[in-house]
Amino acid sequence: MREDIPGRANVADTPELAAYYEELAAREMGALWTVANDIEPWFPKPKSVPVIWRWQDVRPFVDRAPGLVRPEDAGRRVVMLVNPGRRDISAAVGLLYTGVQVMDPGECASAHRHMASALRFIMEGSGAYTIVEGERMTLGARDFVLTPNGTWHEHGVAEGGTRSIWQDGLDIPLMNALDANFYAVHPDLHQGETKPVDSSATLWSGGIIQPTELRKNWQKPWSPVLKYAFEPAFEALTRAAKVHEGSPFDGVIMEYVNPLTGGPVMPTIGSSLQLLRPGQHSRAHRHTGSIVYQVARGSGFSIIDGKRYDWSEKDIFVVPSWSLHEHANASESEDACLFSFNDLPVMRALGIYHEEAYTGTPDGRQAIIAG
Amino acid sequence: MREDIPGRANVADTPELAAYYEELAAREMGALWTVANDIEPWFPKPKSVPVIWRWQDVRPFVDRAPGLVRPEDAGRRVVMLVNPGRRDISAAVGLLYTGVQVMDPGECASAHRHMASALRFIMEGSGAYTIVEGERMTLGARDFVLTPNGTWHEHGVAEGGTRSIWQDGLDIPLMNALDANFYAVHPDLHQGETKPVDSSATLWSGGIIQPTELRKNWQKPWSPVLKYAFEPAFEALTRAAKVHEGSPFDGVIMEYVNPLTGGPVMPTIGSSLQLLRPGQHSRAHRHTGSIVYQVARGSGFSIIDGKRYDWSEKDIFVVPSWSLHEHANASESEDACLFSFNDLPVMRALGIYHEEAYTGTPDGRQAIIAG
Amino acid sequence: MREDIPGRANVADTPELAAYYEELAAREMGALWTVANDIEPWFPKPKSVPVIWRWQDVRPFVDRAPGLVRPEDAGRRVVMLVNPGRRDISAAVGLLYTGVQVMDPGECASAHRHMASALRFIMEGSGAYTIVEGERMTLGARDFVLTPNGTWHEHGVAEGGTRSIWQDGLDIPLMNALDANFYAVHPDLHQGETKPVDSSATLWSGGIIQPTELRKNWQKPWSPVLKYAFEPAFEALTRAAKVHEGSPFDGVIMEYVNPLTGGPVMPTIGSSLQLLRPGQHSRAHRHTGSIVYQVARGSGFSIIDGKRYDWSEKDIFVVPSWSLHEHANASESEDACLFSFNDLPVMRALGIYHEEAYTGTPDGRQAIIAG
Amino acid sequence: MREDIPGRANVADTPELAAYYEELAAREMGALWTVANDIEPWFPKPKSVPVIWRWQDVRPFVDRAPGLVRPEDAGRRVVMLVNPGRRDISAAVGLLYTGVQVMDPGECASAHRHMASALRFIMEGSGAYTIVEGERMTLGARDFVLTPNGTWHEHGVAEGGTRSIWQDGLDIPLMNALDANFYAVHPDLHQGETKPVDSSATLWSGGIIQPTELRKNWQKPWSPVLKYAFEPAFEALTRAAKVHEGSPFDGVIMEYVNPLTGGPVMPTIGSSLQLLRPGQHSRAHRHTGSIVYQVARGSGFSIIDGKRYDWSEKDIFVVPSWSLHEHANASESEDACLFSFNDLPVMRALGIYHEEAYTGTPDGRQAIIAG
Repeated sequence: MREDIPGRANVADTPELAAYYEELAAREMGALWTVANDIEPWFPKPKSVPVIWRWQDVRPFVDRAPGLVRPEDAGRRVVMLVNPGRRDISAAVGLLYTGVQVMDPGECASAHRHMASALRFIMEGSGAYTIVEGERMTLGARDFVLTPNGTWHEHGVAEGGTRSIWQDGLDIPLMNALDANFYAVHPDLHQGETKPVDSSATLWSGGIIQPTELRKNWQKPWSPVLKYAFEPAFEALTRAAKVHEGSPFDGVIMEYVNPLTGGPVMPTIGSSLQLLRPGQHSRAHRHTGSIVYQVARGSGFSIIDGKRYDWSEKDIFVVPSWSLHEHANASESEDACLFSFNDLPVMRALGIYHEEAYTGTPDGRQAIIAG
Repeated sequence: MREDIPGRANVADTPELAAYYEELAAREMGALWTVANDIEPWFPKPKSVPVIWRWQDVRPFVDRAPGLVRPEDAGRRVVMLVNPGRRDISAAVGLLYTGVQVMDPGECASAHRHMASALRFIMEGSGAYTIVEGERMTLGARDFVLTPNGTWHEHGVAEGGTRSIWQDGLDIPLMNALDANFYAVHPDLHQGETKPVDSSATLWSGGIIQPTELRKNWQKPWSPVLKYAFEPAFEALTRAAKVHEGSPFDGVIMEYVNPLTGGPVMPTIGSSLQLLRPGQHSRAHRHTGSIVYQVARGSGFSIIDGKRYDWSEKDIFVVPSWSLHEHANASESEDACLFSFNDLPVMRALGIYHEEAYTGTPDGRQAIIAG
Repeated sequence: MREDIPGRANVADTPELAAYYEELAAREMGALWTVANDIEPWFPKPKSVPVIWRWQDVRPFVDRAPGLVRPEDAGRRVVMLVNPGRRDISAAVGLLYTGVQVMDPGECASAHRHMASALRFIMEGSGAYTIVEGERMTLGARDFVLTPNGTWHEHGVAEGGTRSIWQDGLDIPLMNALDANFYAVHPDLHQGETKPVDSSATLWSGGIIQPTELRKNWQKPWSPVLKYAFEPAFEALTRAAKVHEGSPFDGVIMEYVNPLTGGPVMPTIGSSLQLLRPGQHSRAHRHTGSIVYQVARGSGFSIIDGKRYDWSEKDIFVVPSWSLHEHANASESEDACLFSFNDLPVMRALGIYHEEAYTGTPDGRQAIIAG
Repeated sequence: MREDIPGRANVADTPELAAYYEELAAREMGALWTVANDIEPWFPKPKSVPVIWRWQDVRPFVDRAPGLVRPEDAGRRVVMLVNPGRRDISAAVGLLYTGVQVMDPGECASAHRHMASALRFIMEGSGAYTIVEGERMTLGARDFVLTPNGTWHEHGVAEGGTRSIWQDGLDIPLMNALDANFYAVHPDLHQGETKPVDSSATLWSGGIIQPTELRKNWQKPWSPVLKYAFEPAFEALTRAAKVHEGSPFDGVIMEYVNPLTGGPVMPTIGSSLQLLRPGQHSRAHRHTGSIVYQVARGSGFSIIDGKRYDWSEKDIFVVPSWSLHEHANASESEDACLFSFNDLPVMRALGIYHEEAYTGTPDGRQAIIAG
């Protein structure tokens, strides 16, 4: 790891030093200069790589799972999406975990809670529900649900429903990296329902007008809205697109927020919905922080670190920290829409968000490297 | 002002003291004990009194105004509502001003800005518009519009519209009390339109999902939403009423908020919409801070400091600081709805909000004192 | 109040209008255009004027007070300093009150609390003490003490001390203007001492290193430091002066802060100590917000709205909102030092702080208008 | 990793499942239930273990280093302290790095900056200095210096000084875990000095009184104080100890703070100084977040997860997240004093700080497990 650059470690091995290193190692010590260039890279060197999991590839495995394990044995019946660079920590990208969960009508999982923050993005089926802190939420395709850190939650599909599939997103790897993960099973295995069905969305989704009494009592660090239904969110996005140019890197992009603070939905996970207009091909940029995307509508491609990833509905792909990325809608007539979640709130809370536009070409788009 | 209570000033006049007081007064001084009990009351003693201005009484005067003055001479053609205890500062209650403005089709006022924060609540007519910082907003009945402190703004009614009437609310008396009022006329008398019509409402009224690019650049202390249309707000209110009991003092009450912070719409003025269910009669309470109400729907009454004030649509009434107040919907079948604005953000920002439930009767309602 | 300027009210009186105005007045209404130019001035028009109270003039009255009233009758034995433009509200400037209190050895006042925020700046004597929320503070010359809003507090002079004199500063007029003043006498007339003498200063005056346990539990909006001793503050000021040029308008100026937040000492009152180097004459500026100064050391003059006010130790003077002001040290060899308190935290909390450098002359100093 | 507990994964291996797992693995997928119990532990399971590095053991290696490498080759001549559970990431505990750096008179390292936040705690020598953003700081024993993320900084020892040794603390492993590390060498290898020596400490160490002009312009997320000298900090600590009982777990503990916000010195690293009275033996507790201690004065022991670690001056030891720990001063006559730094600001910023007192014994102290 020597670098022949002033200010970098550049120490030649000698027998004397080798002995010194050995003695240090035996005493839980080491010489910084032997690892300095490695642990202090010029810029982020994620172990994660860009990956796309195409729905056509994932779905067969998801569909096989109910025949293989029961929810009561599996805890949660989930096909995880695992980054080849992060197999040791079961992460999809960076310190974010994602997986695809499947449940059949009448199935339900026991209630639990954990320090990890969690979300679900519904992909298919009817009758799915989540109960969070006594509130049952009914879930339809592309609805986005929070199960924030520390909340009792449980999932299921009603008897009259159909096989339901959703994407889970959690920051389990982050909690483990920070040595701060906790897990508990509800003492009764299931919680009672103490609130009207879908009440948090009913109360809070006005957004710009909020229930005064509830504003007073909310002490939690996460959003009081637990379910963000897709239709009104997509409507807000298409409405905004009429009067707003959006971002050069992301098209018209909107963030799901905690309406009590204007901040992210949970302290460690942010989430967005973005629209690429017909034919739109954005400019490239890179930033600290990792992103997991699911294609909510349409088809197109993203170029990540010079390689093109084609995507269509329900495909899931990831962009590692500091990777150059740009997005394109392949259709000349239809909007494309991406749902995503990320760890940008962590970057911002710790003062380490850093962003850079790609300036390598006049149009700000990367050349494609044969991959 | 003597009070025979330990800890209060209780000094008898003597010739010696009289001479002392006179000498002090000649030198821009005074003896605290001559005024202490007066300037340090046991609890707030507003000069404002409760007042109701019934629409049937106000409207004829509003309707006469266009025949009496032109907007270009009047600046703004407004019938002010003036509290009998605050004539010296033209306040409706506390340090809040309100008035009713009228404009005919084709009329418009010149653009100006001021340190006072301002809002409008539309009462009647079609074709009214406000332009704030280059954005034209079209206004219908009961829409609520901000013209925040420091923004260039102007009002008018389109040629094809009808006579339009709205309530203005400002904190002019507060700005004057704080010696912080500024006023400027736009150098061109009118500003250009630089943004799409109604764009702020289009972009931001999703509330729980917000345009990411615009979130980054907003540095203002007031809400990026400039128009809060009535229909979605009232819908949010009636939706909330289905799952939320509301406040014992106010029925189901919701606050218009700045979606970027979850705070009040402007730093010095808050605004709410509240629903009293058929037959509902709230409990009484009192708090620091003044409130101006307009009846948005229905009819009922409020009891303020023991006196009953009956109200119906478009009536305007005020509750002074620390006055006991409770509200009742007189209808057994229809909801009643009150729009209001207040200086509670000032109370909160300065750490002097103080609230107390009325406990004089078991049901928490005041006995009516013959007034 | 007519102004012949586009955008301003400019309505000629007519008999018809006079009748209209009379009818309005009879119904608690008015026509905005009759007062608009008055209540919406182009810039702040304080009723307060600059005043200086020289110690040689004030002191004889302070010294006479103990012979005239007993503390138990007066409540507090204070000679108020009253602005000629604010006699109606007993303010020294803007919405700030100040006065000079005197107590003899063995005297003490009963404990009370109020919504107004209060401070004391010690001028003379030994043995004075203040007890705030169970903590006795011993006070020496130029020490600065808080008695924040809502805290039980009482003042006295120990038997073995000498006649003690201090300046009180409060925002009583602000609390009254906001209809938010409360007052209570301690049920036992005196509070017990529950904390070690001077403990808050002992614990917190390290400033940049703070007691971890106490940091967790502090919920109050005001500083946990109740006594800011003069010597270390002045030492910090002179030390800073060696490496810091300071402000062009104020010399080397430092703010007393709440160490838990870095904010002002109390939510409505800020306080500063500033040093003018030998011969220094600052540039002029103006801003919203009012200031009360006491000369802590040295002699010099301030020019306020074109008039010169010479000052020396213990003189008290005021600068109204939006008044141009500059300060000069008359000595060529000694530092001059001003203590001051102000309502700038109110301006900032409400988003109405506004500041402007004087640019009327090349050196930024005002010409003196014969006064 | 099966657990026979309701709500936990408990799936028996079958040939069918084995085949399924293999197919998943080949496609960058996996079955959550095969790892769930592992990645979602009941409570934090750090890879770090408690370690103590005794100065008598470390020092010889530090003293040998100057004979082995030159600073210009090593970059920084540092003996790292490496946790046996974290050799892969060169961490001392959790995601914190620490090492001991040595420099001889006349040596200096080139200027660089990094996204990692860094601090130094001086152990020995005279003439050491650090230059941060153009400000040279002179350093004596036990002074504590910040080199915050993103600042240009360089270290050296003046010609007339003596061999100087200090402890470095950084969050390099955190920055790498978050894929957010950046590093740059100063283009000129050394920066100019643009500010007076020790100016930030001179200006800001008053703490409770702060330079007004500099308060306005500070936009950084870290403390404007760069050097926290030991003497005044220790004085504040002993002064506080006279009136404050302190924490049951830590004795009298004080936090170094950013005086502009009252928050931690840097966004990701906090730092404390604590005093154990003669004979004091604290109660045990555990919390999320890792701590690195250096003994600043005296001798004693800590019990960490049931094992006793004796320490004396300059020894360095670590407490992993969620490890039970308690501290004892072995002397009956002298105070003991520990300097420490930690990642608690990360825990707090992300809403995952969690703390628990040990209740296994009546006196709250752990039984010692033979280690």
